[in-house]
Amino acid sequence: MHPHQDGPLARLRRGHEDLVLDLLRKHGPLSRAELGQHSGLSRTTLSDIVTELIESGAVVATAPGTAPRRRGRPVEALTLNPSAGQAIGIDFARRAVHVSAVNVAHEVIGSASEPHDPGLPWEERIALAERLVGTLADGALRLDALHAIGVGVVGPVGDPDAGPAQPCPSADLPALLRKRFEAPVLVDNNTRLAALAEATWGAAAGGQDVLYLRLSHGVGGGLVVSGALHRGAYGLSGEFGHIAVESGDGRCSCGATGCLETVASVGAVLAAYRRAGGHADGLAALLGALEAGDPVALRTLEAAGTHIGTVLAAVCNAIGPGVIVLGGELAAAGPPLFEPVEQALRAHIMPISRDRVDLRPATLGEAGGALGGIALVLRESPLLSHYPARPG
Amino acid sequence: MHPHQDGPLARLRRGHEDLVLDLLRKHGPLSRAELGQHSGLSRTTLSDIVTELIESGAVVATAPGTAPRRRGRPVEALTLNPSAGQAIGIDFARRAVHVSAVNVAHEVIGSASEPHDPGLPWEERIALAERLVGTLADGALRLDALHAIGVGVVGPVGDPDAGPAQPCPSADLPALLRKRFEAPVLVDNNTRLAALAEATWGAAAGGQDVLYLRLSHGVGGGLVVSGALHRGAYGLSGEFGHIAVESGDGRCSCGATGCLETVASVGAVLAAYRRAGGHADGLAALLGALEAGDPVALRTLEAAGTHIGTVLAAVCNAIGPGVIVLGGELAAAGPPLFEPVEQALRAHIMPISRDRVDLRPATLGEAGGALGGIALVLRESPLLSHYPARPG
Repeated sequence: MHPHQDGPLARLRRGHEDLVLDLLRKHGPLSRAELGQHSGLSRTTLSDIVTELIESGAVVATAPGTAPRRRGRPVEALTLNPSAGQAIGIDFARRAVHVSAVNVAHEVIGSASEPHDPGLPWEERIALAERLVGTLADGALRLDALHAIGVGVVGPVGDPDAGPAQPCPSADLPALLRKRFEAPVLVDNNTRLAALAEATWGAAAGGQDVLYLRLSHGVGGGLVVSGALHRGAYGLSGEFGHIAVESGDGRCSCGATGCLETVASVGAVLAAYRRAGGHADGLAALLGALEAGDPVALRTLEAAGTHIGTVLAAVCNAIGPGVIVLGGELAAAGPPLFEPVEQALRAHIMPISRDRVDLRPATLGEAGGALGGIALVLRESPLLSHYPARPG
Repeated sequence: MHPHQDGPLARLRRGHEDLVLDLLRKHGPLSRAELGQHSGLSRTTLSDIVTELIESGAVVATAPGTAPRRRGRPVEALTLNPSAGQAIGIDFARRAVHVSAVNVAHEVIGSASEPHDPGLPWEERIALAERLVGTLADGALRLDALHAIGVGVVGPVGDPDAGPAQPCPSADLPALLRKRFEAPVLVDNNTRLAALAEATWGAAAGGQDVLYLRLSHGVGGGLVVSGALHRGAYGLSGEFGHIAVESGDGRCSCGATGCLETVASVGAVLAAYRRAGGHADGLAALLGALEAGDPVALRTLEAAGTHIGTVLAAVCNAIGPGVIVLGGELAAAGPPLFEPVEQALRAHIMPISRDRVDLRPATLGEAGGALGGIALVLRESPLLSHYPARPG
């Protein structure tokens, strides 16, 4: 565990550590002498750095090779410790906890999920998270090299004026997690984190300006702007589900009327399908009807998709993203949803932008929030200067 | 003129220069000894820095005071050169050139404008800009300390794929300006620059997340996100005028239909007023009718304001700005416009955000684009690390 320092010397040292880790990542096992040649660091500095990396569990010194050497002691090889977790992501969703971890090579070591009752107390959710983390890497996950934990929660995060109820549903959450895992904790909204994950490892990997829309029991989203997670002036950003739609007059959970959520959430689409004479006791049945070519189901999705595309066009004109990612359970509807979305998007976006925006289905699924927590740590933790190139 | 260097040593040196300039700004005239005490720099380093600042014209060494001293040579006092321009902003608008300059204390030395025929060739526009710059500071503007020029142009800027016609209307513009002024040139869209200016010195001074909407012959805008000018993935951002509005079916100059611009530009509002039976040969007449309480004029502005507020609410839900600034000629309508805008904004924004957003009239007027060019230089030029605190 490294102290949470951010001075110039700590940053310089961290830069050296990153350099060494990077070389081991790129070249595989290296001797100290080879590391010295590649890094250009002095023998003393390198020795300090390697000692600390071994102590933290990030690097292991493997047994000397048996190859005969002319003289001197056998050469020790340094390698990255494959089971050393460098960052953990935890998504405290409404009805489930999701966890993921990456090692020092920024490879995902594993992910795990467990559903729970929405009323489960926070202490038990945290215990559940801890248990799930323990199952990662076949139970061999070492937390010695852990830099930070990125945590996703439901609801707005990041309003400096919002008082003690913020910045997470349980005011004690970061403190409790910090105590359990002995690492700094970064918290953000889990849908926004899913946006960051899609822009890091998912459908929009490498995208600098990404719009993520999640069509689930609620409709939300997130924005990545110039490569960074966008938060807005008071912690509200990406609330695409509460943009008013033409002809929308349904009362929304947010207190307003006519929000996109009232016509494009899973519940709203199911209700519209039933009003039109369709029979479905849940999303699975509706998806089945779509697959079977049920014209009522197709028309229902077309109407929802048109609203979605119109709202997306408005947001695109405002912020010009390069990629739009559609996620959430409703996105599983596929072309019957994506085609009307695309059509309305093209109809209402500025013609000059029409061919500049890609619409893609999300690829990370339920793990998005937890992976986004890791992406947050890798991008924003003051201790980690390296951007993850290909961690998945 | 400093070479356009950005290495660690150049940055360190620049940091020292900024420190010295800052001390002179704060304390007024200082001797070298006093500068040494306040800055903590070594005598040698300080001497180098001061010599360079005097050579660049940023600092002047004033005649030694006549006060009697006990021994040694008289004490020379160092002061900021009030007429040394550190950054120039030029706005090449459709029918006018606007220029502004700030000195090394980041105070606006002066602004100047001259209208011209929209067909004026670029060479002549540049000559006009040069002439206008020459009139600043009563013609005493010195360009020796000039760090960079920030230039606003009409149309999209910043699309890496757009080919040679970009990044400005005249592909040679930056090169021509660089040659004339012997300084680096930064170019951006002039409406976006006006947004940056309002967020720096205008209605939203100090705002980190600002939405600027300009209601003129076109309807455009700009976003400041987390303190930085937002550009979007392909150079299009803040195109609020091309967001579709309910009931909008007019053909827009962008090629789409139903854009906000078709109901909220100066021309569209005048046309709507005339269709409703009003008589006005121009905006001035319409503003006069509003002032006189003409109910047709009031209803016309109410309709436009409602569309504007609805679009603003959608954008606010997406990006959560802290301040909205309304500028452009139509903003001069005042309360008859602002009240319906505010009402529709409050009606359609998420209730949780209702009291978090401030709607304000722009304060910088026509100079906004040129001032924004300066703000761009002060924020983004690699040579200037200091953010302007109170330059106006």
